[in-house]
Amino acid sequence: MSITVNYNNMMTYALGERGISDAQLKEHEILAQSAHFQVEAGRGRGMQGWMDSPYDQAEVVKTIKATASRIKKKFDNFVVLGIGGSALGPIAVFTALKHYYYNELPKKLRKGPRFYVVDNVDPDRLNALFDVINVEKTVFNVITKSGATSETMSQYLIIIDMLKQKLGDKAREHIIATTSENKGNLIKLAQQEGFETFTIPGRVGGRFSELSPVGLLPAAVVGIDISRMLKGARDMDRKCRSRYISKNPALALATLQYISMKQGKNISVMMPYADSLKYIADWYAQLWAESLGKEVDKHGNIVNAGQTPVKALGVTDQHSQVQLYNEGPYDKVITFIEVGSFRSDIVIPEGCEDFPDVHFLCGHTLSELMTNELHATRYNLTRRGRANYTICLDAIDAYHIGGLLYLLQMQTAYTGAMLNIDTYNQPGVEGGKDAAYALFGRQGYEDKAEEMRSFKADSEKYII
Amino acid sequence: MSITVNYNNMMTYALGERGISDAQLKEHEILAQSAHFQVEAGRGRGMQGWMDSPYDQAEVVKTIKATASRIKKKFDNFVVLGIGGSALGPIAVFTALKHYYYNELPKKLRKGPRFYVVDNVDPDRLNALFDVINVEKTVFNVITKSGATSETMSQYLIIIDMLKQKLGDKAREHIIATTSENKGNLIKLAQQEGFETFTIPGRVGGRFSELSPVGLLPAAVVGIDISRMLKGARDMDRKCRSRYISKNPALALATLQYISMKQGKNISVMMPYADSLKYIADWYAQLWAESLGKEVDKHGNIVNAGQTPVKALGVTDQHSQVQLYNEGPYDKVITFIEVGSFRSDIVIPEGCEDFPDVHFLCGHTLSELMTNELHATRYNLTRRGRANYTICLDAIDAYHIGGLLYLLQMQTAYTGAMLNIDTYNQPGVEGGKDAAYALFGRQGYEDKAEEMRSFKADSEKYII
Repeated sequence: MSITVNYNNMMTYALGERGISDAQLKEHEILAQSAHFQVEAGRGRGMQGWMDSPYDQAEVVKTIKATASRIKKKFDNFVVLGIGGSALGPIAVFTALKHYYYNELPKKLRKGPRFYVVDNVDPDRLNALFDVINVEKTVFNVITKSGATSETMSQYLIIIDMLKQKLGDKAREHIIATTSENKGNLIKLAQQEGFETFTIPGRVGGRFSELSPVGLLPAAVVGIDISRMLKGARDMDRKCRSRYISKNPALALATLQYISMKQGKNISVMMPYADSLKYIADWYAQLWAESLGKEVDKHGNIVNAGQTPVKALGVTDQHSQVQLYNEGPYDKVITFIEVGSFRSDIVIPEGCEDFPDVHFLCGHTLSELMTNELHATRYNLTRRGRANYTICLDAIDAYHIGGLLYLLQMQTAYTGAMLNIDTYNQPGVEGGKDAAYALFGRQGYEDKAEEMRSFKADSEKYII
Repeated sequence: MSITVNYNNMMTYALGERGISDAQLKEHEILAQSAHFQVEAGRGRGMQGWMDSPYDQAEVVKTIKATASRIKKKFDNFVVLGIGGSALGPIAVFTALKHYYYNELPKKLRKGPRFYVVDNVDPDRLNALFDVINVEKTVFNVITKSGATSETMSQYLIIIDMLKQKLGDKAREHIIATTSENKGNLIKLAQQEGFETFTIPGRVGGRFSELSPVGLLPAAVVGIDISRMLKGARDMDRKCRSRYISKNPALALATLQYISMKQGKNISVMMPYADSLKYIADWYAQLWAESLGKEVDKHGNIVNAGQTPVKALGVTDQHSQVQLYNEGPYDKVITFIEVGSFRSDIVIPEGCEDFPDVHFLCGHTLSELMTNELHATRYNLTRRGRANYTICLDAIDAYHIGGLLYLLQMQTAYTGAMLNIDTYNQPGVEGGKDAAYALFGRQGYEDKAEEMRSFKADSEKYII
């Protein structure tokens, strides 16, 4: 495993009085060890089935590879219908590991179907999709554990109708359902209609599901080595068996974030320096926000916990966000992701001899430019007392991406344990769901509809 | 102008004790009026040239349209080389107004060249671009006011070298420079090499430049009606002539954000409910972060001002961020962007009769689903005391996008004036630039290099 975590710039060692001291870290050692104990004790149980994902999928991986190989031969397009945890992982891994303009490549360079993830119900976007794909040459992977996700099931209804009109009985060959093994609508539908099905284990929640069939099938279809992804996760899991902050990278990061939150740092920026890792920050945003953003702790005390994730991209956002990070409130922790080596490089050729502020670049490579800008930005932030740490990946490949995802899942699990909250529920979205049902006039939601009607109507006074 | 601002859900009227009262708003009336006065007094002066952009471009718009029309006929691809303010506006407007999969459309549906904005120096991404475009059929729009932006000039050096090798003297026909009229390297280069050139007015800074040739040329090339964009900005400007909070939407939003910041709300979420508006949130993130994130006020007092922008997308992020927004700390203001009507729609067909939690959707449209989810999410957040307001656009077209951008620029200008900071500088990024120069061994930066070397080397103790 060649993922390292460098947290020098969280410590007084580099940040001076704005840093965390060795003594502070030591004070949290017991809390960290107990979080570690709690997470280990729950391994594979409750909603911690994701900790088994690196180990218990030998059989399903074979099936996924066979299905992927069949899809590659038979179809031009692969479309994921999913939202939240059913979309963010597939997008993040695809973007990390495939060509930046994959869908625009000619077929023989692409070596797989074009790939789309439709994670919204915007009508303009879905109509746009139908302009660029032929549904008769497309397989749709419907991903929802409950089979009751309004957005995904709306998409499903539109697409199955379209497929049946065009293809009759053969429509079934164009749908793959990834869902609960025995609960919910989609598994029943799949059985009725005869769709190929993959199972989301009951103990794996949406935001922890990328290393389950949710993520593995889409990845395999575009030619990503999913066995290597799982190997990366396994090797990271081994690193996380230690209960010592000084040895367990996820536990160290969790403890540092926990201390930072208690100090009032309510913002967590993730800033990878590689375009391919941009959507890792999106995936992490859900993981971190939905796991830790909780009103009550396990004892029912009101805590309003949580740290708001912010997605950034180096070097791009140096020209957008870094001014604020350098000079604004001391309210954030920045996670840099550094890449040891890119997949390719470009030398900046000679030119602009008359302009010293440009000419100094000549003869250097773009990867040097990326790395120097990261180091310079980080140095400057550190000297200004801004808390940051760096996760460094030796390379961007399936193995390291698997390891990175698992690292961040472990960090989240430990942090949730330290905060003493339920890391795996999401009660805060239920109220919104009920209100949406009420607006649609769904049976059984009449009281909610009445409640909404009786809530103050919009005052014209506050509309301009 | 059919852009309305609804701030009911910022007020005690809807939020109860967590809201802002009429009395509080009244207390800030003088501050707001003086911010309005200050912004009006600076109109067209200092760095407020952007306030003239809707009015003083009749001539350049003609030239831009002629150039765009020539490019459409002659080239297959149009590539913007730029970063920060030179990229975020072009991306936001393109995404807002063009087909979601524009580059994948066949040429006759596209009716313009394929469109790329390369806003990073990742070597894998630039190499990927060269896999999908033929540079001999491509025009590159190099956008940098100073002509000294390392990222953009590196890209330029690579591309001009490539073009000259392939095309010799004709290379010049493939570059359009958008830069300062008389300062900096790029205008000199353009004159030496004979590139077509567009001017970024001296009084228009990068993040306020979308309605200048920076944004207008790329927009015109893909067939966006730039005259309508400017008309939208003009009509919004007229609304912003009022010094009263109750009449000037930008001033109302600025005042509400100012009060919220003073209450400790250090996060500003922008959450449009339309895929096409996703990158408006990115553009706004730079505008808000870089303008307001300042260490000192105009008197030199240390203030560490600023509110951290967070980009979200409805309904997608209901399944990612909204749990945190509902239950986490009361530390944010949410800006919803609502769309009156989408450009198209889709009816959800009959099906799933056995599943009431899905069947209730049948017969409704996707645009209803988008709108109901927005209203439901907003209702739920409001009932939980979470501050939010809504900007509603009647339609997503050039006119409304021009108006929206101008509204947000005015809001930013007023807020900066209330905070008594310099809205238009970015001193915090200079330290990082110097450090990067030092890492490249650039002449004149030996002291910085020495300073960096003497800074504590990484402690192995904090690396796992």
